[in-house]
Amino acid sequence: MLIGDLGEFGVIERIARLLPAATADVVVGIGDDVAVLDTKGPRYLLATCDIQVENVHFLRQATSPYQLGRKVIAINVSDIAAMGGRPRWALVSLALPPDTAVDFVDKLYRGMTDQAQTAGLVIVGGNLSKIDHPMVIDLCLLGECDKERFLRRNGAQVGDAVLVTGTLGDSRAGLHLLLNPHLQVTDAARETVLAAHLTPQPRLEEGQLLADSGLVHAMLDVSDGALGDLRHICEASGVGATLALADLPISPACREVARASGVPAEDWALTGGEDYQLLFTAARHDVARIQGILAERTGTAAQVIGQILPASAGITAVSPDGMVGSHSGAGGWDHFREGGKP
Amino acid sequence: MLIGDLGEFGVIERIARLLPAATADVVVGIGDDVAVLDTKGPRYLLATCDIQVENVHFLRQATSPYQLGRKVIAINVSDIAAMGGRPRWALVSLALPPDTAVDFVDKLYRGMTDQAQTAGLVIVGGNLSKIDHPMVIDLCLLGECDKERFLRRNGAQVGDAVLVTGTLGDSRAGLHLLLNPHLQVTDAARETVLAAHLTPQPRLEEGQLLADSGLVHAMLDVSDGALGDLRHICEASGVGATLALADLPISPACREVARASGVPAEDWALTGGEDYQLLFTAARHDVARIQGILAERTGTAAQVIGQILPASAGITAVSPDGMVGSHSGAGGWDHFREGGKP
Repeated sequence: MLIGDLGEFGVIERIARLLPAATADVVVGIGDDVAVLDTKGPRYLLATCDIQVENVHFLRQATSPYQLGRKVIAINVSDIAAMGGRPRWALVSLALPPDTAVDFVDKLYRGMTDQAQTAGLVIVGGNLSKIDHPMVIDLCLLGECDKERFLRRNGAQVGDAVLVTGTLGDSRAGLHLLLNPHLQVTDAARETVLAAHLTPQPRLEEGQLLADSGLVHAMLDVSDGALGDLRHICEASGVGATLALADLPISPACREVARASGVPAEDWALTGGEDYQLLFTAARHDVARIQGILAERTGTAAQVIGQILPASAGITAVSPDGMVGSHSGAGGWDHFREGGKP
Repeated sequence: MLIGDLGEFGVIERIARLLPAATADVVVGIGDDVAVLDTKGPRYLLATCDIQVENVHFLRQATSPYQLGRKVIAINVSDIAAMGGRPRWALVSLALPPDTAVDFVDKLYRGMTDQAQTAGLVIVGGNLSKIDHPMVIDLCLLGECDKERFLRRNGAQVGDAVLVTGTLGDSRAGLHLLLNPHLQVTDAARETVLAAHLTPQPRLEEGQLLADSGLVHAMLDVSDGALGDLRHICEASGVGATLALADLPISPACREVARASGVPAEDWALTGGEDYQLLFTAARHDVARIQGILAERTGTAAQVIGQILPASAGITAVSPDGMVGSHSGAGGWDHFREGGKP
């Protein structure tokens, strides 16, 4: 059997089963996006890494090295944000072709250090290797969280509301524009969705506020797509969920690009990925209070997009005309797929 | 200018200059093999990473996945050992071609977990990506050290003895055998040098004993070759050094493979690299005590191979016939180079 047959999550599940039981100092081990470790200090240590491969995660002709540097930091900060933690220190491993311009490395690091400064973290080390092709960038990010107040994916409760910060689908719309640069859209829409894709901004302050509120039951950042990440929450929590397509927060820019592309914007919002918004669940009666905290302290909107149901309900979405689609596994969505069944 | 022109250490120096000044919680930042971080816990946090690229650092046809897994852990443990620290937690980033057999991943992880158990650490997370080719494995290893008793490369003092544990050159001899499998040597020699290359064993207990002794001034693990790593110590400490070639600890197995290959064994011992022995300096009057501690507690020999001199002396080596060679920069050695000057 080849790993291509098992898929990313299949391989990770298999690896998790191979590992010996974690020791007592491992509060959260393999399987979550971030490991939570007990150094016997006042806070828990957080550790996460993300490997970015040229032509898989980024295209050198479509992103500037400065943007790439910012994004590499931002996507790891987003994982720490989703636990309500604070990012502190980063290690950068680079495998670079020998014909990479020194100027490229300079700009990559300028992007990384600018984004690092925004997030309050410092780059403290790394490693460098040559590679023929493609370029590989692996970032390991360390952070800290309060021992009592950090959030995981596994706490969703039946009856919870499902909320998401900001808007969904912009990053996917930006990718679509990069791949179809001659699409006719307004400059404003182009700028919005390209920025969402090339320089996403993690919801760091929002994540800390949500963890500190003590009102949130489960949280993840939207990296695989809202639907796929909701599935992660449901599987870890042993619950099901339903989403209302009409309630998905979609920006006018995303709608414009989707319309010009002949694609339903809801498709990008559900499965596009790389939104780096926070997806979380909380009791219905706490929703207004949570929305108030976020709006007042950060100006960020959080919208209810669905609710948590018993596991037997699976994961479904209801369209405005009452049609029900169901999750097809592996991030797919039957209702929106070509040839899929309603 | 291309990074191939600057070289690994040139690029790292350039990156270090680009980074903003480290914050107070960064005890040791970029430039050393291991970052030392203050989490306000009872011990300092150590963080290091090492990216291994297929066909640059390993050949899939020459190493088993189990051996590769062991080595990936071992070489990072060696960096923690050289500070006198304890390895604790590892994150593994893998970029794998889709046609990688699941069995390969199983055996890679079995090697990693076996070596991790030996070193007292656990794998707590990671990240997985596809790549067309080559395979890339990046390990981030976290550890801990006593706040008062950790060793760096920058403490060597004029008059110090330079010591090394174990023997030098075996790993390079093993690589030579992998590249020249039909070389006529005894099975015992083949086994010894191949094991040194494919499954190196870091000097973890020795490193902790040396740090705890309070007698060692500067320490590094021998990854780039004894000469290159001595240069790292000298540059960081602002000193020079001289080595006695006759005193280099070289195993009979390494000598046998070198003889069969028509190469001076001292060449491999000086510049071969990947020995993962500990290279350290201490006052002459403490040498016997240090050797006694290591021999009694671990059975490991530590041999004096040279001494620390003022920076003006540069880095030289004296051969048994009194010839003096000098360090040529970038790990090279004029005396042994083809066409080099004595």
